[in-house]
Amino acid sequence: MDRQYPSAALERAVGEFAQLPGIGRKTALRLVLHLLSRPEEEVCTFGKVFTTLKQDIHYCKVCHNISDTDICEICANPKRSNGTLCVVENVQDVLAIENTMQYTGLYHVLGGVISPVDGIGPQDLQIASLVDRVAAGGINEVILALSPTMEGDTTNFFISRKLQPLGVKLSVIARGVTVGNNLEYADEVTLGRSILDRTPFI
Amino acid sequence: MDRQYPSAALERAVGEFAQLPGIGRKTALRLVLHLLSRPEEEVCTFGKVFTTLKQDIHYCKVCHNISDTDICEICANPKRSNGTLCVVENVQDVLAIENTMQYTGLYHVLGGVISPVDGIGPQDLQIASLVDRVAAGGINEVILALSPTMEGDTTNFFISRKLQPLGVKLSVIARGVTVGNNLEYADEVTLGRSILDRTPFI
Repeated sequence: MDRQYPSAALERAVGEFAQLPGIGRKTALRLVLHLLSRPEEEVCTFGKVFTTLKQDIHYCKVCHNISDTDICEICANPKRSNGTLCVVENVQDVLAIENTMQYTGLYHVLGGVISPVDGIGPQDLQIASLVDRVAAGGINEVILALSPTMEGDTTNFFISRKLQPLGVKLSVIARGVTVGNNLEYADEVTLGRSILDRTPFI
Repeated sequence: MDRQYPSAALERAVGEFAQLPGIGRKTALRLVLHLLSRPEEEVCTFGKVFTTLKQDIHYCKVCHNISDTDICEICANPKRSNGTLCVVENVQDVLAIENTMQYTGLYHVLGGVISPVDGIGPQDLQIASLVDRVAAGGINEVILALSPTMEGDTTNFFISRKLQPLGVKLSVIARGVTVGNNLEYADEVTLGRSILDRTPFI
């Protein structure tokens, strides 16, 4: 049921929020009414931050992660092992891997995965720059750390075809049972994979 | 755990979303990344709508509902019964009651309920203007349609004390069992109330 709002300005504001992922019209109205209850200055700042968002956000020229500088902090850090490259989908995945504190190499942010349904092809992603980066030399290993979905697997396969001729070591993050979960809750595909990919015990 | 974002502009945008009710930092980051994937023009429009939100939204001078005109469509409609006033908390409640198609009178939007915890007192709400409106005459009945919470009940009580001397008929929306739900799921207070407030059958 589409509600009739009593004001075009309200309708416009609700419409803007409602086009964001996971926000319906009811939530959007609640957010707009929340903003209306805040001081004018605060709401104005809220709007201004997004008006210039696309100009304000820059990307690292090397790894394409979001960065305030031309070269991001990770790429510019001399303490990181620069022979290893971890290919991820987006900035969230960089943050997630950084939080594990298990990785000291560099990243390459694709900006998405190949998804014909959404009209995203290899040319829309930072794949050409990845190939250039590996071809330039100095990279020993490329770790594919995309989501274990059909789109992620397709992208992994496409990238591997492009990188294999360059003679770089290619690996993919392990798929197996979730740490801390009971085995009976693991799905068959994951459990089967965890047996096939078993690792030496000590 | 507070993540360290690689960019101040990103941090700012995430912070703005995260201060909205029901949106955490993880969701906020997802929303910002979604905006970044949209065309610049679209994101700019998103920001501009909120930059001028407080100036663009006007309130009806009579009922204080959101309106594009000085007097809202409901107050200006000669077909509505102008002897009945329904007191509600906000515009969402007006929309909800309008959707029932069971009410043809006018509204009075308080803009909140009395809540000492949140620092909201009677002077922050449109209670004085409600008393003026009733004192001006022509209103036969005031229906209190606030949420059945402690804050709503407190506000109902405060309003009733102000309106009783004016000799207007005061009523409150019925509290009882939810239509369509099994009786066993009704809470004791509501079920008890529904017995006390039983209505004649036919």
